[in-house]
Amino acid sequence: MIENRVYNFSAGPSILPDEVLLSARENLLNYEGSGMSVMEMSHRSKVYDKIINDAFDHLRKVMSIPDNYKILFLQGGATGMFAAIPLNISKTGVADYIITGNFANNAYKEAKKYMKDVRVAGSTESENFTRIPSQDELTLNPAADYVHICQNNTIFGTAWHTLPETGSVPLVADLSSCILSEPVDVSKYGIIYAGVQKNMAPAGFAVVIVRDDLIGNPQPICPKIWDFGKQAEKNSMLNTPPTWSIYICKLVLEWIMSIGGLEELKKRNEKKAALLYDYLDSQSFYKAQAKKESRSMMNVTFRTGDDELDKKFVAASVEAGFTNLKGHRLVGGMRASIYNAMPYEGVEALVDFMKKFAREQA
Amino acid sequence: MIENRVYNFSAGPSILPDEVLLSARENLLNYEGSGMSVMEMSHRSKVYDKIINDAFDHLRKVMSIPDNYKILFLQGGATGMFAAIPLNISKTGVADYIITGNFANNAYKEAKKYMKDVRVAGSTESENFTRIPSQDELTLNPAADYVHICQNNTIFGTAWHTLPETGSVPLVADLSSCILSEPVDVSKYGIIYAGVQKNMAPAGFAVVIVRDDLIGNPQPICPKIWDFGKQAEKNSMLNTPPTWSIYICKLVLEWIMSIGGLEELKKRNEKKAALLYDYLDSQSFYKAQAKKESRSMMNVTFRTGDDELDKKFVAASVEAGFTNLKGHRLVGGMRASIYNAMPYEGVEALVDFMKKFAREQA
Repeated sequence: MIENRVYNFSAGPSILPDEVLLSARENLLNYEGSGMSVMEMSHRSKVYDKIINDAFDHLRKVMSIPDNYKILFLQGGATGMFAAIPLNISKTGVADYIITGNFANNAYKEAKKYMKDVRVAGSTESENFTRIPSQDELTLNPAADYVHICQNNTIFGTAWHTLPETGSVPLVADLSSCILSEPVDVSKYGIIYAGVQKNMAPAGFAVVIVRDDLIGNPQPICPKIWDFGKQAEKNSMLNTPPTWSIYICKLVLEWIMSIGGLEELKKRNEKKAALLYDYLDSQSFYKAQAKKESRSMMNVTFRTGDDELDKKFVAASVEAGFTNLKGHRLVGGMRASIYNAMPYEGVEALVDFMKKFAREQA
Repeated sequence: MIENRVYNFSAGPSILPDEVLLSARENLLNYEGSGMSVMEMSHRSKVYDKIINDAFDHLRKVMSIPDNYKILFLQGGATGMFAAIPLNISKTGVADYIITGNFANNAYKEAKKYMKDVRVAGSTESENFTRIPSQDELTLNPAADYVHICQNNTIFGTAWHTLPETGSVPLVADLSSCILSEPVDVSKYGIIYAGVQKNMAPAGFAVVIVRDDLIGNPQPICPKIWDFGKQAEKNSMLNTPPTWSIYICKLVLEWIMSIGGLEELKKRNEKKAALLYDYLDSQSFYKAQAKKESRSMMNVTFRTGDDELDKKFVAASVEAGFTNLKGHRLVGGMRASIYNAMPYEGVEALVDFMKKFAREQA
C-alpha cells in the first residue's frame, strides 16, 4: 500500500505493518480530535490512559494471557531485563542459564552481578550455537530459583521448538525476536519478556509477562523503575512511560487482531519460512547455518561458504532494493529477518534474487 | 500552522513545535528516500547513525557542552537516573541531597539504596517547597562524593536561579523541566541529566551530560545499560536505543538552532513567564504559589484559594480549549507549564481566559 518501500530484513528495529504506519501518520498531528499528537500527551490524561490500557488489554487477548499473570511495560529493553529479572525474582541466589547464543550469554553474565550462584545448565557454544540443546544435554538444578532461556536466537537463527522441562522451577524466557509470531502457552512460563523492537513496536521498552507468585520480593538494590510489584500497582506508569512506542504497540496489536490473531500469523510465518528454507535445502550454492531441528521461523541465517562472495551478495542485495541482509559479525554470512510485518512477496522476491545471484556466479 | 490545536499546558510529556510534528509526519512513511520509517530502521544502519550523531552534535552545539563532557542517551527516564547516578559515581558512599520538591526527594530516597550515607543538606519541605533554600541554609559536607539538586521543580513551580556553591564537590543536577529553556554554564556541573519529555523529545529516554573524570568507576551492581563508561564507548548504543524519540530530539534541536538557539529561547521564555506572573501579581483573585525569588520560568503554579473554585476553573479551561491546567495532587490549584514550544499567543490566551473567569465569579 505504501509506495517506494524497500524490503527491510532488519533484525530489529524492524519492519512495521503498512496499516500501522498509515494510521500513525494520519493521526500524527491530532489524535482522534484531542488537538494534539500522542507524542505530546500527558501520560496521566484520559485519552492516553485509554491508549495504554488498550495496549495491555489487546496483548492479554492476543496472547491469551491468564489472569494470574501481570503485564508490564518497562524501559531498558531486554538488556535492562537481564538485570531486572534477578533483581526481582532471586530468592536463594541460585539460577540456571542455558546458553544458546549471544543474548542468552549476555543475560547470564548480567545475572551474575546479582546472584551468588548462576550456573550454565547447557550450552551449544562449541558448535557455534547452530542448534538448541536437547533435554538430556541439560544439567538442571532442581533447587534453582529459575531457569533462563533465550527462546529465539536472533543472531544465530535458532529457536526452541520444545521448551525444556524444568519441573517446579519457573521458566524465564526472552522472547524478543519471536513474541507474537505464533501462539504460546503462557502458563508454561514463570516470566516471558521481550524487547519490543521486532514484532511489537518501535524500540523503546520491554514487555514483561510475569506470574503473580514471582512478584513482590525484589532485592533491596532493585531500581524503583524495575520493581515488578510497584510497576504492576501503578499500571506501568510509576514514572513517565515511553508513550509513543506504547501507542504504536497498540496499533500493531490491533493489526494482529484484524488479520486473525496469532493462529493466522503462525500460518503466514510458517509459509514464509518454508519458502526460504525449502529453497536453501534444494540447492548447494547457499548453506543454511542452523541445524534443521533448531531453525528459527523469524531469523534465517545462511552463507555461501566464501566470505568475499557473501560480501558481494550483500552489496548486490542492497542494489536490488533489499536492506539489512548482512549477517551479524559473530556469525558472518547473511541473515534474513522475516518478522510478522514482512509480506510473503518480500520473501518471494528475496528467493528470486538469491536464485539470480547464484546463477550469475556460475 | 497546524489547525485545530489546543493550547496544551501539560507538565510532560508536553507540547512539541509545529515544525517538528510536520517534519515527522512528512517523513513518517519514508525517511529521506530510505524506503522505510525511522521507526523501522536498524540502529546499526548508516542512515540511523547519522540521525543519532546529529542529535549528539546538535546538543553539544546548542548547549555549548565542553569537550571534557560526554553526552549519553539512556533509557529509564530521570527516575532511572536517580539510581544510575549513585551506581556510577559513588566513591565513598557519602552524598548530599537538597530537597526542594517531590522529584528531589525521590532522587534522595533512591540514592539511599546504593550509598551508605546520603544526607539532606537542605530542605524547604516545611514551607511546602514554595521556595529554593539560600546558600546559608545549606549544610554541605565537603567530603561528599557529590551534591544533588533538582534545578526546576515541575510540581511546585520553583527553580534554582543561582546554583549552590559546592566548592570542589561535583554538582549533579536534574534539569528535566528546564533543560534547553535558556543557556547554562555546563562547566559548573559534574553531571546534568534530564528526562527528555518536556523540552527535548517525546518520552523515552534521559540525557546525561557527564564530566569525564566522573566516568569509569561504576559499582559492581550497576546494570550494564546504565554504565556511563560502557555507554560512552558505544555511543549510547550498547543495546538498542529508543530510536524514534532520539530522532524527534534531533528535529527539536534543529528547530532550536533555526530560531536562534538558547539565547533566543531565553528571551521568549522570559517574556511568556513575565506575562503570566505580572498578571498574577497585579490582582488578588489568583495567588501565585511560588515565592517571587524562586519562581520557575517553565511551570507556573497558582490557585484561587478555594478548592471548589479551582475545580471550576479547570473545568472551564478545558471547555475553552486549554488542557492540563490542573495542578499536581501534591499542590492542588492550577499549573501552567509553558515550555519552549508553547507560543506567546498561548499564554496571552490563557491570561485573557483567567481575567474573564475572574470577572465571571465577581
